[in-house]
Amino acid sequence: MAVIVQKYGGSSVADAQKIMNVARRVAETTAGGHRLVVVVSAMGKTTDSLVALAHQITPTPDPRETDMLLATGEQVTIALLAMALHSLGFKARSFTGAQVGLVTDAAHTKARIRRIGGERVRAALEAGEIVIVAGFQGVSPDNEITTLGRGGSDLTGVALAVALPADVCEIYTDVDGVYTADPNVVPDARKLPRISYDEMLEMASLGAKVLQSRSVEFAKKYGVPVHVRSTFKADPGTLVTREDSGMEEAVVTSVTHDRNQAKVSILRVPDRPGVAAQVFGAVADQNIVVDMIVQNISRDGFTDMSFTLPRGDRARSVAALEDVARRVGAEGVQFNDRVAKISIVGVGMRSHSGVAARMFAVLSKEGVNIQMISTSEIAVSCVVDDKYAELAVRALHEAFELGRER
Amino acid sequence: MAVIVQKYGGSSVADAQKIMNVARRVAETTAGGHRLVVVVSAMGKTTDSLVALAHQITPTPDPRETDMLLATGEQVTIALLAMALHSLGFKARSFTGAQVGLVTDAAHTKARIRRIGGERVRAALEAGEIVIVAGFQGVSPDNEITTLGRGGSDLTGVALAVALPADVCEIYTDVDGVYTADPNVVPDARKLPRISYDEMLEMASLGAKVLQSRSVEFAKKYGVPVHVRSTFKADPGTLVTREDSGMEEAVVTSVTHDRNQAKVSILRVPDRPGVAAQVFGAVADQNIVVDMIVQNISRDGFTDMSFTLPRGDRARSVAALEDVARRVGAEGVQFNDRVAKISIVGVGMRSHSGVAARMFAVLSKEGVNIQMISTSEIAVSCVVDDKYAELAVRALHEAFELGRER
Repeated sequence: MAVIVQKYGGSSVADAQKIMNVARRVAETTAGGHRLVVVVSAMGKTTDSLVALAHQITPTPDPRETDMLLATGEQVTIALLAMALHSLGFKARSFTGAQVGLVTDAAHTKARIRRIGGERVRAALEAGEIVIVAGFQGVSPDNEITTLGRGGSDLTGVALAVALPADVCEIYTDVDGVYTADPNVVPDARKLPRISYDEMLEMASLGAKVLQSRSVEFAKKYGVPVHVRSTFKADPGTLVTREDSGMEEAVVTSVTHDRNQAKVSILRVPDRPGVAAQVFGAVADQNIVVDMIVQNISRDGFTDMSFTLPRGDRARSVAALEDVARRVGAEGVQFNDRVAKISIVGVGMRSHSGVAARMFAVLSKEGVNIQMISTSEIAVSCVVDDKYAELAVRALHEAFELGRER
Repeated sequence: MAVIVQKYGGSSVADAQKIMNVARRVAETTAGGHRLVVVVSAMGKTTDSLVALAHQITPTPDPRETDMLLATGEQVTIALLAMALHSLGFKARSFTGAQVGLVTDAAHTKARIRRIGGERVRAALEAGEIVIVAGFQGVSPDNEITTLGRGGSDLTGVALAVALPADVCEIYTDVDGVYTADPNVVPDARKLPRISYDEMLEMASLGAKVLQSRSVEFAKKYGVPVHVRSTFKADPGTLVTREDSGMEEAVVTSVTHDRNQAKVSILRVPDRPGVAAQVFGAVADQNIVVDMIVQNISRDGFTDMSFTLPRGDRARSVAALEDVARRVGAEGVQFNDRVAKISIVGVGMRSHSGVAARMFAVLSKEGVNIQMISTSEIAVSCVVDDKYAELAVRALHEAFELGRER
């Protein structure tokens, strides 16, 4: 008899009818004799509405009070889902983050999990109850309500699966798995039955929105299998798990793209120690997370630095950088909002050479100019003009034969 | 420097603008050098909306899960009010019922307070913070979220005032105090500057909706002064307090009426032991709270029993009673939905005779037929045809000279 953690996102529980549907799905799983812990998010756009309400009061709501406010969203869903399961004749009991002993640090709105007690969850499972847990929330050692940041409910699910322990953490979402590329862009994109934690991590950071990176890191660290699947279909989805021998046959697993990026360059920066720290310190001070960073070789004691960042943060970043440029004696700042990042991902790259070269050749053949390049052990990313994004993804998907069943 | 508990009801915090208004009012009070604990209800009709949401899932939501659901309403308000006070430059901190250690029994949806720790409240007050507490909610010894039933936020306010202790508990509402009669019915009704706990208790049970009975009982038991006043005006309202000598001068303090009642009679009931228990047991089994009960003297071994109850419960009660009537051999069941209960209240009645007789004479002079009578130590109530309700209240208000300043 397996212990299974299932996590349902906000769109899966957006109204009473959808909550009833989730209850039926949960009930079917228990019919298999399994013990079930269900983690849920706030209903639909509830979190956004609560944030908007706070902003009617003040443009800068206090983080502690923001957590007090936002934690109510998940608490509503757990109570309703418990009622729904009761109405189907099942024993079920809901718990807040505090009640399951999900203890975090005190970093409100982006708290990190320290430990999960889980005693009440285990006791309820022993008593034959379906356990329902509010995602996204925890409690600090000082008994303050905290939240885990965007996508935090995935993390709650994975962390509970580690703590119990559970055999698998199933993440239910509105897509039915992880694909070789975005099916909206590539018609013959193929659902991957299995993928490694590292590949999923790269894909998450490279624009695939299926799973939050922190929850994948957590799952990898503790070796919990994560099954990404659809709320609305019974088919199996994609199992995110440890690498196995079968995975290495494919050099490239998927092509991702991220069209939500801007490129910023700071030109002719004096190449001396401490300058890079000043430049990126200025951006970090704005709480902006920089993605790719490229620094060219130095000529005559000067260099160019380029980086990508979320498009919404570009204006603030440029303002901060113009200031820094003056201070360090750089020539100036340029930006481009119309770029896309195209990446190929695959654990097989570790043992295969020439993959990056082949990617560049494919793009070149399609007449796509590469503006920036960055590589990791299992991924290669190119920044290109946004207008080539779809063309590039389709060409790479075909060249690496990702649509072919293996 | 006084410690003051202020409680604001749902209509006072119905939207962001109103919450800002409450914040300003709170800020003004602290400007007097006082330490402040603010108890708030859920915003506007939030509790009703949450109940409606639960009923979309199931007609019989589990009480534990109902509390889990409803407790979110107050939690939203406390966070927003804390943000509002921050935006005005004040230090403020919100707490759930569990966080302030408001421990109740485990009777979900109608829990009774066992004790209030209050340590965090005192610590926050010491730190110069305005303390904001979620009304209506508590926590059971097993760490389950509980709620105190309708009007429970008043009770939270009074109980906190007892625990801290505070000098006064101010209940802010949309009326500006307790009146000698409903000002909508009696144009010259007068606001009472002071009233005793017992009078307030009688008035609450007799249809005045200003304060919840349980909170008045609690205030009486521990001698906490309760100040009922308007959210929207600065004037003092009505102080509910211990009896003092000045109060006894007035024999009658107020006239109340309750038009939300129905009268049910069970006719020619065999007058033998156990029958009354069967009759009222059947009603209690429906979870219906009966108000006045009148049993006439027995004739030929039979008697008639009449009682009043909330009009909304009449249909269920009659159905249950028809069943009992058959079983015990009574003649049948009659009901009347168009009745009103008119009452006069005053601690002075304890030491004055003839007050009831005078009330009957006033009603008789106006041609109002009395259908049922019930008396307590400090109140007399008559059930009359609903169409006479306003006439009766005005006639009694005038006859007992309640509009005259004292």
